[in-house]
Amino acid sequence: MEKQQIGSNFFIPMPVVLVGTQVKGQANFMTVGWCARANANPPMIACGIGNHHYTPAGIADTKTFSVNIPSADLLEKTDYCGLVSGAKTDKSGVFDVFYGLLKTAPMIRECPVTLECRLVQMVPLPTNSLWIGEIAGAYADGRVIKDGKPDFPEIDPLFLTMPDNRYWTLGKYAGDAWSAGKKLME
Amino acid sequence: MEKQQIGSNFFIPMPVVLVGTQVKGQANFMTVGWCARANANPPMIACGIGNHHYTPAGIADTKTFSVNIPSADLLEKTDYCGLVSGAKTDKSGVFDVFYGLLKTAPMIRECPVTLECRLVQMVPLPTNSLWIGEIAGAYADGRVIKDGKPDFPEIDPLFLTMPDNRYWTLGKYAGDAWSAGKKLME
Repeated sequence: MEKQQIGSNFFIPMPVVLVGTQVKGQANFMTVGWCARANANPPMIACGIGNHHYTPAGIADTKTFSVNIPSADLLEKTDYCGLVSGAKTDKSGVFDVFYGLLKTAPMIRECPVTLECRLVQMVPLPTNSLWIGEIAGAYADGRVIKDGKPDFPEIDPLFLTMPDNRYWTLGKYAGDAWSAGKKLME
Repeated sequence: MEKQQIGSNFFIPMPVVLVGTQVKGQANFMTVGWCARANANPPMIACGIGNHHYTPAGIADTKTFSVNIPSADLLEKTDYCGLVSGAKTDKSGVFDVFYGLLKTAPMIRECPVTLECRLVQMVPLPTNSLWIGEIAGAYADGRVIKDGKPDFPEIDPLFLTMPDNRYWTLGKYAGDAWSAGKKLME
């Protein structure tokens, strides 16, 4: 298959999360697609957030943030949190908020899994910054935990692709990791 | 819904990529689930890679790496590249390799989209490090580009969930981003 060069501004498919912060004493939530695990032990997660957003001030101030995984049935509210800025609109009432150990990382009760994070490091980049947090606490609805592990079809996470700007659900089981390739080891 | 505390070692669902490097002059590929966009302009991508792996030496040496998006039909080869280390096994012949502008970032012809990256920064963390690269070139099979945009169902990317260690396909279209939440703005 012949390759064609495309624009460098390419986006790999992204899991959609809601990042929660307390800004000026009020809970705020922002839709973020640029999050990934950053460290195995202790568990850390990195989120790339535009420097002009309202959320960074809250993280810098409280040194905490939350990462909430919305199910597909929260699509409209999730998208809403990416459309309006906390600088102009109070988003503290969009969800039912709860707190864990950290007290300043508001989490969303409607999300089946929520993580509260302690800021470890901020990596400034030209238009965005990477906010790296250690996962200090993780909470889940009992229904999404099976045999002690998260059941991802039950969590029903959303993915975002750009620049077509579409949300997608998790698809079909395709194979076992650290297993399916073993036949090529022979 | 009552929340229960779960282990902090939680993994959000991850897009699966193959990171390509040249180590000791030879192409090597490693399966990575911890990649996300890190900066909008210029386009940068960050990949969390375990410090004990073979790949970091190649990135540090050449200051370049590639990010290749495998389709689901490459699942076995993709998993294989996560099972065996380049330190012990030559993986340069697993795929048909090509190069772009950077000359030291081997890309995979079988992958429908490939990115070549110039190292911008390395952020050391306790067990892993974040390798941040600027996307210098992006290449795609003509069949996955529609109306000038990547067609993600055609790309057919894989996702990984942990600790259940399962691969998944992209699911169904669920809604339009920066649009579906507009009705809540009224």
